[in-house]
Amino acid sequence: MSATARVPQEERTRAMRQRLMEATVDLLVEKGFSGTTTTLVSERAGVSRGAQLHHFPTKNDLVVAAVAHLTEIRGSDLEAAVARLPEGSGRIEAVVQMLGDHFASPVFTAALELWVAARTDATLHEAVAPLEQRVGRETHRLTVELLGADESVPGVRELVQATLDLVRGLGLANTLGDDARRRRRILKEWSRSLESALARDEKEKP
Amino acid sequence: MSATARVPQEERTRAMRQRLMEATVDLLVEKGFSGTTTTLVSERAGVSRGAQLHHFPTKNDLVVAAVAHLTEIRGSDLEAAVARLPEGSGRIEAVVQMLGDHFASPVFTAALELWVAARTDATLHEAVAPLEQRVGRETHRLTVELLGADESVPGVRELVQATLDLVRGLGLANTLGDDARRRRRILKEWSRSLESALARDEKEKP
Repeated sequence: MSATARVPQEERTRAMRQRLMEATVDLLVEKGFSGTTTTLVSERAGVSRGAQLHHFPTKNDLVVAAVAHLTEIRGSDLEAAVARLPEGSGRIEAVVQMLGDHFASPVFTAALELWVAARTDATLHEAVAPLEQRVGRETHRLTVELLGADESVPGVRELVQATLDLVRGLGLANTLGDDARRRRRILKEWSRSLESALARDEKEKP
Repeated sequence: MSATARVPQEERTRAMRQRLMEATVDLLVEKGFSGTTTTLVSERAGVSRGAQLHHFPTKNDLVVAAVAHLTEIRGSDLEAAVARLPEGSGRIEAVVQMLGDHFASPVFTAALELWVAARTDATLHEAVAPLEQRVGRETHRLTVELLGADESVPGVRELVQATLDLVRGLGLANTLGDDARRRRRILKEWSRSLESALARDEKEKP
């Protein structure tokens, strides 16, 4: 096969995999983990069962790949949003609100379905745990960078973690029909506290 | 039927309902929502299918009643733990750590299974939403009381909500294999910030 013929084939494969993964995330959000079947995914993506099974032999392969893929896209979106953040006053709140929106997205809902299913499914757990760890580390690293926080200062690491656990809790509340206004008010107040706490820890630095 | 004959019958019924509800919560924790079948529940509780169907005609009736029942028990446990909380210095952290433990309990895991299933099941959602609202209001009220927080002061209500959303986020992380040491460190640091923020808001009171 010549190089020119191979490229379009690779592109078609890539596009097909992407359609499968996007259909999977949509179905996880709409129908939950147990309602997401490989048959529904291939129908929704417009991909033959044979082709789907070739790329993703099991439902677990599909859901883990889909959530990993969409998490990466959301991660890039987050990095892009960073360029629009204000510097100086207001930056901490802007970062915190951006994280709050991030954890209220459909990708969080899809990931939640995956986590909860993985809790009682050992095979799925084995695949989801490394993804969850990698995403957790990446989000933590990005948050530290965005806040301009110095983790060598005692207490700072915990404040960053608390912020991420808070937006995770708000993300969970959001899937149960919570509203964005409540989230914004809470995160505004937490940003004030975080700002003082980071300044206080910096001052107390040994 | 005489009064003396009726009392033991009522007690047997109550004990049977309780066994059914406890078996349901255990199964939600062990096998998740989709793995919890009414057949498994009646086996686990040692109750006949007929008696079970008489008290809880559908799986939804059973899971909602079970989580409501266990939430009430946990609520009483929480109220009882209050008596052992220190007054003065250290109280805020003691309250926050107690809430953290509360949201890391198996009842939280069972409730999480219910919430996530209810997200994509309209019938279950209709039953779960009022329970979730009632429990949310109760926990909020108790937290305000325990912290001795004055919600007429601007910002205080949001700080109490943030604390509850944080322990919910930590509860979710806990179901994915998080550890208690991490939680304690985060909540210790959170408590310090909460203490300063409550004092600051009080001072800024209009």
